[in-house]
This record gives sequence, C-alpha cells and structure tokens, in this order.
Amino acid sequence: MQRTRFGDMTCSIARTMDVIGEPWSPLILRDVWVGINRFDQLQADLGISSKVLTERLKWLVGQGVIERREYQERPRRFEYALTAKGSELCAVLMAMTAWGDKHLAGPEGVPVLLHHKTCGHHFDAEVRCSHCGEQLAGADVQPHPGPAQLAEA
Amino acid sequence: MQRTRFGDMTCSIARTMDVIGEPWSPLILRDVWVGINRFDQLQADLGISSKVLTERLKWLVGQGVIERREYQERPRRFEYALTAKGSELCAVLMAMTAWGDKHLAGPEGVPVLLHHKTCGHHFDAEVRCSHCGEQLAGADVQPHPGPAQLAEA
Repeated sequence: MQRTRFGDMTCSIARTMDVIGEPWSPLILRDVWVGINRFDQLQADLGISSKVLTERLKWLVGQGVIERREYQERPRRFEYALTAKGSELCAVLMAMTAWGDKHLAGPEGVPVLLHHKTCGHHFDAEVRCSHCGEQLAGADVQPHPGPAQLAEA
Repeated sequence: MQRTRFGDMTCSIARTMDVIGEPWSPLILRDVWVGINRFDQLQADLGISSKVLTERLKWLVGQGVIERREYQERPRRFEYALTAKGSELCAVLMAMTAWGDKHLAGPEGVPVLLHHKTCGHHFDAEVRCSHCGEQLAGADVQPHPGPAQLAEA
C-alpha cells in the first residue's frame, strides 16, 4: 500500500525512496556494490531472515538496479550484480556516505575509505551543480515546479 | 529496536539511513527545504497523521537536521527550518532527485526543476570525486575498510 503511494508521488525523491527507502534495500545494494554478491554471503553479512532477503532481492531485481546471474552451471548457482542503473544509484549511497562520514562518525573515524579506480585515489563524494560546479546545499537551491507537476496542476 | 541497530552499524550509509531512512523523514526534510515549514502545512502536504508527523519532526530535530523556531509571539507559533547539517543533507536529496529524474520520470517529464541561487541557473546534481572531479558510479569505486572498521576487526 504505502510502497505504491510513494512511487506514485510526483517527486523524484519519493520515487527514489520507493526503490531504496526501507533500510535493508540500500544496505543490500551497498553489499552487492562492494562484492558481497551471493545469497548466503548477504544473509550472513546483514543478519536478516532469508524471507526478507529474498523479498528485497526480488524487489531490487524488479526495479532493475541489480540482476541475477549464473556463476556456476552444475549445480546451478546464482549471484547478484549491479546493473548500470544500480551502479548510478550507488552515487546516492556515496553522497550518503560523505554526509554520514562528516556528521555521524565518532572519534574512531570513518567506517570506510572510498577508492576511485578511475583516478587511483581515495576521495569523498561531492554533490555539485551541473552548471557552475559548486558544491550544493539546500539553503542555496530553490525547487520550481517541473513539467510533471505543472501537468498535474 | 531496528532504528538503534542501523545507527550503531559501522557504516555511514546505515547511519545516514537511520536519520532519513523511513520514507516520511526525507519527505519532511524536502518540505522544510522548499519552504513548507509549519505543522499544518506539512500535515496538509504529506497527508499523514499528526501523531506520525509529531514523532518524525521530533526525531529530525533531535538529529539536528531541522530546528524549531518561533515565528509569532502572541499566540506563540513555531515553524521548522533546516540547520546547516540539514542543509548539507539536502545534497543527498538532490543526488536522489537526479537519479530519480533520470530513471523514474515518465513521459510527463521531471517533477521539479532545481534552481541554484548561487549561479542563477537550473541544474542537475552531479556526484563527483573530490580528487579528480569525475562523476561517480558504483562500478568505478572500491570501498576499503576505514579506521572505524579496522578498530572493530
């Protein structure tokens, strides 16, 4: 019920939260991203019931952010991998990581260091304006109704 | 129970989801960001019970991402505003918006256009590497254990 409602809202935040908006989904996406790809590994890492994990994996596959692929023929075994759409969704996880690292890390430091294979360095994710390149914060941005909201009005 | 568990994980994604990880919280944050600041307005816009809204607002104030401020003395009336920490969290919402705009908008177009007051243009949020400036995707990034994970091992 609620799931449908969020996905139907004319809001890209609500729609994206509908894809990754209960806490397990982003953590499953995170695990598949970092190479925890198999059902048993996921279950062990996350400590969730196989019922919930099965349901969440099916949801994420249905949303096209991960895919199931065979890695062994006899017996047939499957693992999960990011799709291109899921790989792009990881950028949202990286933006979350940057904010969490800055505001929620304790004296023991950040949980994880992100290594950019493309440039070979550790980095923080920065959310920047596609026009001027500045780092973005809510106070500097004003949303205006877009075509889909105007069509509804 | 679950809330505590996510916040306690040595993972900035889990910790950030703990702050905004049930669907109403990011939508409340979105509303306060765009200027829907008062209890009645929030309730009307979101269509949630005053019980849930009260609870969620208290949670977000407690997390330091929004604050309650008096806007009228007689009778005393309060509204909600982003803190600096909340304003930075909006960058995560913008990264969500960019992904949702690209992958979840239908033929009617995007719900909202974001206007950058600093540069005066509409923009999309781009999540970029702090080292090389390239746009980030999960496939190009490898997480390594950081100090907090190493301290736990």
